[in-house]
Amino acid sequence: MKSVILAAGKGERLDPLTQTRPKAFMPILGSTVIERIISFLEELSIKDIIVVVSKDLPVEYNEFIYKLNKFSNVKIVMQDTRLYGTAAALLPLRSEINDSFLLIYGDLLIEKEAIENILNSEYNSILGVEVNNPKDYGVLNIRDQKFLDKIVEKPENPMSNLINGGIYKLDQKIFDYIDKIGKSIRGEYELPDALNLMATENKIEVVKYNKTWMDIGKPWEIIDANKKILDVEKSKNNGEVEDGVVIKGKVIIENNAKILHGTYIEGPAYIGSNSLIGPNSYIRPYSIICGNNRIGASVEIKESVIMENTKVPHLSYVGDSVLAEDVNLGAGTLIANLRFDEKEVKVNIKGEKITTKRKKFGAIIGGHVRTGINVTILPGIKIGAYARIYPGAIVNRDVQKGEFFKS
Amino acid sequence: MKSVILAAGKGERLDPLTQTRPKAFMPILGSTVIERIISFLEELSIKDIIVVVSKDLPVEYNEFIYKLNKFSNVKIVMQDTRLYGTAAALLPLRSEINDSFLLIYGDLLIEKEAIENILNSEYNSILGVEVNNPKDYGVLNIRDQKFLDKIVEKPENPMSNLINGGIYKLDQKIFDYIDKIGKSIRGEYELPDALNLMATENKIEVVKYNKTWMDIGKPWEIIDANKKILDVEKSKNNGEVEDGVVIKGKVIIENNAKILHGTYIEGPAYIGSNSLIGPNSYIRPYSIICGNNRIGASVEIKESVIMENTKVPHLSYVGDSVLAEDVNLGAGTLIANLRFDEKEVKVNIKGEKITTKRKKFGAIIGGHVRTGINVTILPGIKIGAYARIYPGAIVNRDVQKGEFFKS
Amino acid sequence: MKSVILAAGKGERLDPLTQTRPKAFMPILGSTVIERIISFLEELSIKDIIVVVSKDLPVEYNEFIYKLNKFSNVKIVMQDTRLYGTAAALLPLRSEINDSFLLIYGDLLIEKEAIENILNSEYNSILGVEVNNPKDYGVLNIRDQKFLDKIVEKPENPMSNLINGGIYKLDQKIFDYIDKIGKSIRGEYELPDALNLMATENKIEVVKYNKTWMDIGKPWEIIDANKKILDVEKSKNNGEVEDGVVIKGKVIIENNAKILHGTYIEGPAYIGSNSLIGPNSYIRPYSIICGNNRIGASVEIKESVIMENTKVPHLSYVGDSVLAEDVNLGAGTLIANLRFDEKEVKVNIKGEKITTKRKKFGAIIGGHVRTGINVTILPGIKIGAYARIYPGAIVNRDVQKGEFFKS
Repeated sequence: MKSVILAAGKGERLDPLTQTRPKAFMPILGSTVIERIISFLEELSIKDIIVVVSKDLPVEYNEFIYKLNKFSNVKIVMQDTRLYGTAAALLPLRSEINDSFLLIYGDLLIEKEAIENILNSEYNSILGVEVNNPKDYGVLNIRDQKFLDKIVEKPENPMSNLINGGIYKLDQKIFDYIDKIGKSIRGEYELPDALNLMATENKIEVVKYNKTWMDIGKPWEIIDANKKILDVEKSKNNGEVEDGVVIKGKVIIENNAKILHGTYIEGPAYIGSNSLIGPNSYIRPYSIICGNNRIGASVEIKESVIMENTKVPHLSYVGDSVLAEDVNLGAGTLIANLRFDEKEVKVNIKGEKITTKRKKFGAIIGGHVRTGINVTILPGIKIGAYARIYPGAIVNRDVQKGEFFKS
Repeated sequence: MKSVILAAGKGERLDPLTQTRPKAFMPILGSTVIERIISFLEELSIKDIIVVVSKDLPVEYNEFIYKLNKFSNVKIVMQDTRLYGTAAALLPLRSEINDSFLLIYGDLLIEKEAIENILNSEYNSILGVEVNNPKDYGVLNIRDQKFLDKIVEKPENPMSNLINGGIYKLDQKIFDYIDKIGKSIRGEYELPDALNLMATENKIEVVKYNKTWMDIGKPWEIIDANKKILDVEKSKNNGEVEDGVVIKGKVIIENNAKILHGTYIEGPAYIGSNSLIGPNSYIRPYSIICGNNRIGASVEIKESVIMENTKVPHLSYVGDSVLAEDVNLGAGTLIANLRFDEKEVKVNIKGEKITTKRKKFGAIIGGHVRTGINVTILPGIKIGAYARIYPGAIVNRDVQKGEFFKS
Repeated sequence: MKSVILAAGKGERLDPLTQTRPKAFMPILGSTVIERIISFLEELSIKDIIVVVSKDLPVEYNEFIYKLNKFSNVKIVMQDTRLYGTAAALLPLRSEINDSFLLIYGDLLIEKEAIENILNSEYNSILGVEVNNPKDYGVLNIRDQKFLDKIVEKPENPMSNLINGGIYKLDQKIFDYIDKIGKSIRGEYELPDALNLMATENKIEVVKYNKTWMDIGKPWEIIDANKKILDVEKSKNNGEVEDGVVIKGKVIIENNAKILHGTYIEGPAYIGSNSLIGPNSYIRPYSIICGNNRIGASVEIKESVIMENTKVPHLSYVGDSVLAEDVNLGAGTLIANLRFDEKEVKVNIKGEKITTKRKKFGAIIGGHVRTGINVTILPGIKIGAYARIYPGAIVNRDVQKGEFFKS
């Protein structure tokens, strides 16, 4: 069976992270969301995987997309960006698909079981994820106990606690239904519209699922996603741990990672491959050091995701924050993670102040950012990719991509 | 024998500490000045202890006064604030006192021997403390070799090196003499005036004493007081000390305190109960961590008193300073403790710049203060209770109670 | 044989270091350039050493010059500053020199072999140092295969790869030639002019040499010089190293140095006598701690020369920098050592921006400087002797001698 992974979403709410990194490539421990999905497909012996990406990509996306070359079964297809939306992304594949196929959103954090369940259905099928807050999603109305009646976006009064899980098994007829629908009010061709049309004339089984399922929409959810996965992983030490290192609780240390004397690690924590930690660092619970990182002397990390190649070399405190790839924090750069009034920290998402629902939240720092020494960053701040923060600056507002910030 | 402890003083020179904490409750290691006195009384089998406090108290004082409830023999009496002074504070107790009684100022740092000596006198008696600088105190003029002639406040030419030690054994006649005196030039009814009158008609024995005696008048004297007591205490370890902790010299570690790997403690030092220290902290001589504190990673403390519930969690240096209860220093908050000219550090006391007589002195930080990250505090600064210091601010002047300081 | 060491040069390009320290006394590990030369002379049994210094010295030079009193064979002679130049410095010695004598520039980093080779010559002689870039020096034109024809300053087309090495064996006739030359275009009496004149009528052998030879002209070359010597020294531990200290690679620890628990030293590194390091310091390759230093808790040093009596006591990062004697860095003072554009760091040398040819270079800090807490110093900055840097200041321009800098 062929499998199509849709990875063309812009992920604007994940800005500034998506300025240099595709949404589907948000890190999960040492891997990424989409690589995780592909690994599941390979484990399930899906031999033919098409990943749909946008033609109109920031150049920085390429290095991530190229990473998929390590999977021999993956073929990458560029989407024509003049046609918008998830459904439109499928149309160019019509000629390649000659049977039932698996369709998956590439930015979903799931367990393998979600795909397995779909594959086990005898019908066209859709994943129905059991949630407590269906109102915030596309809710699945059901007929005849098990078949899709209609997907209703964010209904006031949800008919079920099952939501559209973004994983489907579909036959070729779906292309005909996509042909028939028009643009949605968002100006996009929406797959749910095609599915709703298909459901009126076909049986689409709703396959229930109640394990890990997350659409990482907002930057701080990257922390949540990693916590969730870290919680189910087991301790591992494939690195080099010097004498005089303290390790408490569950800690995963990958190949070629090296932990220097005097470092204190309180698990759960993840130390990615080729990372150098210490001496005298303090790594607290839910620190995710993705790989090829330098976490230096007298640095404290707490409940943060530090993406690949990023360095926090000297005398810094990073708590409850998300740092993209290839960031360098100058010595003594500190990130505040608590307001004086101890209210929930808010973050600007597409022009609107959104609560993170966290009393403790630090900063979101885009790819390739450099901060000078002694920089002070306030809670809830976003720093755009490639920004430069002048030494000693107090960052008390969001910083634009490429901006040179001097307070 | 009944005992009366006067604890109604305002302690304005201890501002901002007394904004939220009674003068008699200044900390001495894990205890307070007044609790120390009460413990001595209990050890001396004084079963009936009246503590006189002011009716007109900051609400924050209550939690301290309530702490006395743990002593079963203590009764708390509120003073009517319309009548002023130490003598006036006694009058409402006239009906309760029917014999000789012990009278003690509650804000004096003393040894048990001071009380014992008074108790051993056959007469009415007053503690005469031997000092080198009697001019600064109420000096005791003596007649017939052992009896009080007169207490003279701050005389140019002291008649003795004995000063009024603030501990007395008196019979009920004292109330009559209080009735007879008028207000002093300070507008208060002064106990010494009543004693002087009593001395003209009665024998009041001057009981000599030359051990620890301190009236903690100015904030930095809290450090001195604690040093004095720490110097005579013995090492103790009732806490948990991890491997890789270095302890040099005399260190007292109380119940449930925990010292994490890589912490270096140079005694004499006091680590109060329920405190968490480390990893990789540096605790230098005369650090007094009163109890329930968090002293964090890569933090250095030196010759400072850190009161209950206060946190210095990350990358700070606190030297020669006094931090009140429930303070939180943001990561990287540093306190300077040396002027460029290396002159003695001065502090504003009641509107006047007073030398601390210390070349090294840091800051005095009131209760419930929060500082942001990367805050810089200059030597001799006072920060009022509940103040908020903006991240990155340079605090170069005193900060008022509740002020939001942004440089 | 008598030996004359010329140590009267001003070393203006080494400003601000030479504001308080003679050029010849730039540190080499625990010694200085000139002391190193004198030690070689003593090893070679030269019993009569005259060191020529300027009469017109900053008062701070005296303590350095007095250090030479420990060498029993050394006599110090003050130069009359009304006559300028290296040659002029020699003339007052005419009456004392009655035979061939050794003449050496006191600010040259050399090996003993350089002097030995000169001593072995049968003729008047000059050291010819083999270099790759002769154009930048005084090039030796040679006649009859081994004798000096002429010294040509910075020629476009060098006739050889041998340059004037600043070490000579000369007979008394040199004084006559100095008499005959006039002032050079620099307004000084130049020794090479006298040598050129002498060479026309006498045989001056060019003695070849290809080992360590460095004229430390610019501040960052002090780092290079120390690296060079450290590279050939052997590990040594004459100090006290506590348990829980990590030492990797070649580290020299001198008498009475003490390294506290949790300190991590990555050699090659030099820890001078009476220095106190730690706890929890991070000493990285090519850290040169000259002697009597305090490197404190949670401090990181990398590829820097820290001269005598200088203190970096708390929470600092010092990378690729030169700190003169008796400097004190306030807690949390950080030195940046990398530009945002990662271009070579430039430094003002005599009014001109000169590249250090280093992508990583920090600051040059003059003697007796004090920085406040939380000070930020940018790459390539020079801070003049005795300057005071206000707490929290961002030093983004050179600071003058004695200046009080507040940003």
